[in-house]
Amino acid sequence: MDNLGAVMVPEGIDIQRLLESKRLSGTLRGDGSWEYHEGMSAIDVINEVECEVVIETTPTELKRGEPGLSHVKAALTAGRHVICTNKGPLAIAMPALMELAHHNDVVFKFSGTVGGGTPVLDFAKKCLEGSRIKSICAILNGTSNYILSKMGSEGKPMKEALAEAQKLGYAEADPTYDIGGFDTACKLVITSNYVLGTSLSIKDLAITGIAGVTPEDIKKAASKGNVIKLIGRVGGGAKVSPEEIPVTHPLNVSGTFNAILFETDSAGDITLVGKGAGGRETASSVLRDLIEIRRTFAR
Amino acid sequence: MDNLGAVMVPEGIDIQRLLESKRLSGTLRGDGSWEYHEGMSAIDVINEVECEVVIETTPTELKRGEPGLSHVKAALTAGRHVICTNKGPLAIAMPALMELAHHNDVVFKFSGTVGGGTPVLDFAKKCLEGSRIKSICAILNGTSNYILSKMGSEGKPMKEALAEAQKLGYAEADPTYDIGGFDTACKLVITSNYVLGTSLSIKDLAITGIAGVTPEDIKKAASKGNVIKLIGRVGGGAKVSPEEIPVTHPLNVSGTFNAILFETDSAGDITLVGKGAGGRETASSVLRDLIEIRRTFAR
Repeated sequence: MDNLGAVMVPEGIDIQRLLESKRLSGTLRGDGSWEYHEGMSAIDVINEVECEVVIETTPTELKRGEPGLSHVKAALTAGRHVICTNKGPLAIAMPALMELAHHNDVVFKFSGTVGGGTPVLDFAKKCLEGSRIKSICAILNGTSNYILSKMGSEGKPMKEALAEAQKLGYAEADPTYDIGGFDTACKLVITSNYVLGTSLSIKDLAITGIAGVTPEDIKKAASKGNVIKLIGRVGGGAKVSPEEIPVTHPLNVSGTFNAILFETDSAGDITLVGKGAGGRETASSVLRDLIEIRRTFAR
Repeated sequence: MDNLGAVMVPEGIDIQRLLESKRLSGTLRGDGSWEYHEGMSAIDVINEVECEVVIETTPTELKRGEPGLSHVKAALTAGRHVICTNKGPLAIAMPALMELAHHNDVVFKFSGTVGGGTPVLDFAKKCLEGSRIKSICAILNGTSNYILSKMGSEGKPMKEALAEAQKLGYAEADPTYDIGGFDTACKLVITSNYVLGTSLSIKDLAITGIAGVTPEDIKKAASKGNVIKLIGRVGGGAKVSPEEIPVTHPLNVSGTFNAILFETDSAGDITLVGKGAGGRETASSVLRDLIEIRRTFAR
């Protein structure tokens, strides 16, 4: 833990200068022109800095949800509003975190975890009043969808399409999280709990990824006017698996698009399509969450 | 005007009994078991009945917007909140009506005019905060989209596809309103004024319908990987016309679906897809508007 440390600047941090210093010296210690606290941890910062909102953006980890889970717990317990773009804590402990936020009378928002800049969660909550949502089915992982689209349009085997996705930066060096269906499962858990009021964790889902899908499967589906997509589905159970859907189905989106279909009792099937990820898009979701917290405060 | 008349029942109207009476006797006069006011007009009802909300659902008429325009004006002037599912008054006089509602401090909602049960207008207002909407392009008329889809998938000429749409009840006996692009234009005006804050009326739009689209045009587009769709577009001018878009474009929805794409600066392109019309769907939008008015009251 020798390399723990935190930068704190009450007037606001000059991110450009900080990044420059990190690039040149390998640390954030700097030249003394800003306050650097040797040995200070993120939890310390959350507890000690007088702030109203904590924004948690560490990477998703699905075994224990750490370090995000500890950050979110500490922040909620300290009475901070929390905006979280990290799916790990939610996939593992969402009901408990919602309860903790409620108990401490603070706002807990996580729009960026599902759909990137596409306001999937807010849409279902704010725009579908008066209709009952009967089921949700969705394409929530851009990497898998890119790979399946490429396999479909160009007849490429999985391995080649994956290599291409990695080259374009759509897929990680270890693609298990995406093509194994785990990213889709996280997002489905979050959406279902938020929109349908379930209390799921990722352990409750049956998860099958796309590793077993062959160009022959895709060709066979095409001969029936269908495409194969990695679909997450709740309503009569919750699962993630490759499914055949008609070419004309609203979920048949190509490339890295995400799409989510809400089946409603009175407004029909409503589908939201957008870019599922991206730094700028996720940042826009954080901004929206901040605006909402500000508004809730103002009341 | 001899056949003017109104039914008024303070405890609520039994619609089933009323319809039955109309079916049997051809009038709503009934057998005296409810109050029937001979000679009373809709405007009289709006002015004389003590009510908080007027719901205007007469059919769209685009020459003068009547009788809906007079109903909405009378209701707003009398200090009633108004829910309007009729596009005519809005396509012709939306800025003036918005101003009238504002002046009388009442709520004026019209969710059902665009997208049927798909909450297009609310989505843009409530879920895209923090992002600037740069342009809107959309498929807003299910009839035209059904016809173009049929021409595309089955190589049918316009006339045959139209006859089929009429047989299925998707198209009116006089299809000008739909296939001439006027319905799309109305919805585009309403969406642009509501979401982008423009002050358009239908006269400001360049409107070209789908009557000139041939199976050959569609075949030629297909050879380039494109489809032809009737698209309404605002952002650098406002117009309605058939356009070629790639098969993989999120607006490429089939059958009677509607789709609307918001181009945003920070959240990417976001598309909403749903059933564009239908009695049940429009009723669900009225219900949502009522809930919102109730909530605005409650504050």
